[in-house]
Amino acid sequence: MIQQTSEQLFKQIHNYIENLSYMHEPKGLYEPIEYVLSLGGKRLRPVLMLLAYNLYKEDVEQIFPQAAGIETYHNFTLLHDDLMDKAEMRRGKPVVHKKWNENTAILSGDAMLILAYQLTMQDCPTAYMRSVMETFSKTTLEVCEGQQWDMEFETREDVTIEEYIEMIRLKTSVLLAGALKIGAILGGAPAEDAQCLYDFGIKMGLAFQLQDDYLDVYGDPAVFGKKIGGDILCNKKTYMLITALNSAEGNDKEILKYWLEATDFNPDEKIAAVTHIYNKVGIATACKTEIQRYYAEGLALLDKVSVEDSLKENLRSFVCRLVDRKL
Amino acid sequence: MIQQTSEQLFKQIHNYIENLSYMHEPKGLYEPIEYVLSLGGKRLRPVLMLLAYNLYKEDVEQIFPQAAGIETYHNFTLLHDDLMDKAEMRRGKPVVHKKWNENTAILSGDAMLILAYQLTMQDCPTAYMRSVMETFSKTTLEVCEGQQWDMEFETREDVTIEEYIEMIRLKTSVLLAGALKIGAILGGAPAEDAQCLYDFGIKMGLAFQLQDDYLDVYGDPAVFGKKIGGDILCNKKTYMLITALNSAEGNDKEILKYWLEATDFNPDEKIAAVTHIYNKVGIATACKTEIQRYYAEGLALLDKVSVEDSLKENLRSFVCRLVDRKL
Repeated sequence: MIQQTSEQLFKQIHNYIENLSYMHEPKGLYEPIEYVLSLGGKRLRPVLMLLAYNLYKEDVEQIFPQAAGIETYHNFTLLHDDLMDKAEMRRGKPVVHKKWNENTAILSGDAMLILAYQLTMQDCPTAYMRSVMETFSKTTLEVCEGQQWDMEFETREDVTIEEYIEMIRLKTSVLLAGALKIGAILGGAPAEDAQCLYDFGIKMGLAFQLQDDYLDVYGDPAVFGKKIGGDILCNKKTYMLITALNSAEGNDKEILKYWLEATDFNPDEKIAAVTHIYNKVGIATACKTEIQRYYAEGLALLDKVSVEDSLKENLRSFVCRLVDRKL
Repeated sequence: MIQQTSEQLFKQIHNYIENLSYMHEPKGLYEPIEYVLSLGGKRLRPVLMLLAYNLYKEDVEQIFPQAAGIETYHNFTLLHDDLMDKAEMRRGKPVVHKKWNENTAILSGDAMLILAYQLTMQDCPTAYMRSVMETFSKTTLEVCEGQQWDMEFETREDVTIEEYIEMIRLKTSVLLAGALKIGAILGGAPAEDAQCLYDFGIKMGLAFQLQDDYLDVYGDPAVFGKKIGGDILCNKKTYMLITALNSAEGNDKEILKYWLEATDFNPDEKIAAVTHIYNKVGIATACKTEIQRYYAEGLALLDKVSVEDSLKENLRSFVCRLVDRKL
């Protein structure tokens, strides 16, 4: 079995996506789609799909349309989420609803979702068509459910850790898991393998998102790429905040509540004060422990996949690098 | 061949759609979907799909999921179009972005589009899956293109009749045509029949939309259901207005342009003045002639469909009643 590294797969699928042509009329519909897809990114989901396929088959180019389909879907969610979140920038460029307008963001997004389906169907072998399309639809619907929970949590004060984990499972994990499963299905994997890879993706997605929450507080600004403390400033109910609210006692709990309710404050002061409580109740360790637990559970699931262990090395090292960055 | 009338088919598919259960969590995502689907309507597209299927097969209940899928898609477009148009009411009830909020309208709409795909796939025979899904995706993408043209035409003064017809072909006709074609495919129709029924749907859709434009000016308010003159008030570039701008001369053209540019006016006065020009240049007759032409071309295409003529009667009389209402 000839395998390719994640870097090799990235280059190919990135190139394939860059060369997708949306030069149809009306330009007002298709130009924003090209714009969003050209902003780049890690192409994480298509690379995962190709790595899973490459456990079973060599001709990865056969599923470039499906890999591009899941990336198109992911970019569609960024487009509509940025609109719902009233974001200004994405990957250093103005978002579609700023560069064009809100109606363009709505309608070009809708068209992107249809294009994602078209790519996922394109040249899909008939034998796998139903299971691929059903996995794709189930996954994409769950991502919408995750976004809905995320928005509802903004105005709720009683979000539990279980609810938060379920939200990030839906919003983040299932798309990574779905990418792996579709790659496995198209590679002709046994159903048990496809399920193991899906479950592996769920665990790794949870580890990945918890790490993102962690880095938002404890990351190196130069490496993290986003401003540190953003989640603290907007009271985002992350693993960190929910755990701190559960663990803090007495005066610490009062201080935390004070900052959650404060409306007029110095941002740096709020970040410092909340981080101080996090430090006192040991949130960093608690969070790292959880990340390592999900990570280990994920790797154990990958071990169960029925292909020879050496073939899993590209996938394993790719995911390790993702979860390990700067922890 | 046992056939059912459009009324019988309407009752069944209406009931099927009413009983679709979206009682999943999160309620904030699924309740607006149930709400939109419960607002009723003519269920035109599913009835057309069932009528086309019923030309070839009796067991119409086999394709209720696909019929519900195209209705779900149609209602998704109403949800997002109402948001983009900043509409207030739909079928006498507040629109989703008013009853809930704009983010709910965006996200529940996205979920509806995915649900439309899920229904269209559900129990779809494998032999027809690819052609059904490809027809569905091509059609739904074209509807987005039609909506984009429609929005772009609002700020353009030079829209031609050809451009207008192409816009309504995309925005209105292709979904009727796609419904008929999918029904035919699932009924096992020969490819030529499926194409004839598609083309028949295109012509009928054009006749139907031109009639809607006509009724907006010349309809009986009690029957039309919308306020007469709405298109005139917002300078909508309909067949009526574009033709009037092309035909009016001298003083009439000046009067028309005056009203197009007027910003502060009595609505009834504008409607009366523009209608007066329409009357002078004979727009009513010109529009009715076009409607009858598309209608006749459509019926000629239906004649070419290879099933016995008597079997076409339900479909023919259903479409006749649609296009003939109040002309």
